[in-house]
Amino acid sequence: MANHSEQTCRTVDEGVTRVFQLFGKRWTGLIVATLIPGPAYFADLRRAIPGISERMLSDRLTELGTAGLLLREVDAGPPLRVAYRLTEAGKALEPALMELGRWAAEHLRNNGPCQGEL
Amino acid sequence: MANHSEQTCRTVDEGVTRVFQLFGKRWTGLIVATLIPGPAYFADLRRAIPGISERMLSDRLTELGTAGLLLREVDAGPPLRVAYRLTEAGKALEPALMELGRWAAEHLRNNGPCQGEL
Repeated sequence: MANHSEQTCRTVDEGVTRVFQLFGKRWTGLIVATLIPGPAYFADLRRAIPGISERMLSDRLTELGTAGLLLREVDAGPPLRVAYRLTEAGKALEPALMELGRWAAEHLRNNGPCQGEL
Repeated sequence: MANHSEQTCRTVDEGVTRVFQLFGKRWTGLIVATLIPGPAYFADLRRAIPGISERMLSDRLTELGTAGLLLREVDAGPPLRVAYRLTEAGKALEPALMELGRWAAEHLRNNGPCQGEL
């Protein structure tokens, strides 16, 4: 393997590291992608993301709120319901998500292990 | 919240879903990002990704190989060493990773919970 010595001290971009501290957890990316078109109620999110538990969804929404990607809005109702809306920072992920979607359409199609649970 | 009814049956793009089945696991994104500049030995990857265990790195490399993103290459040595190289599909993630890095630099800076463990 050529040029090995120069790679010994390779490090990853700090931004990329932080992105994957956030998105390297199950469901986080899908929650953001689901909210890109506009705000949604908790129940809508659960329906849109098959397999997520109420507890998991709640935990991930809290994390995304703490990271500044979404806001929680109480709709007084009745019935009282809570909606989740992306902040400007959250919405700014759209180009990256579209790029990832394009990549998947081209490179993950018909790729066995990616169609089910990894 | 306006336009709620149209959002009730929201679903996420299938490509994005598959992307996050792969990258919604701890370390996977960082491993790919580390391999973007070129192939690396197992030990290089461990050094480049602080905190990853040998077992985790090995498991993630296997998953990425199964998904068609990287190839394993044996360097007969001595010493015998195994290098990992992104496939064309893996390399094609570079624009999306750069977009994510740009997003993080702009939107995750000084954001408490993202600097440590989430």
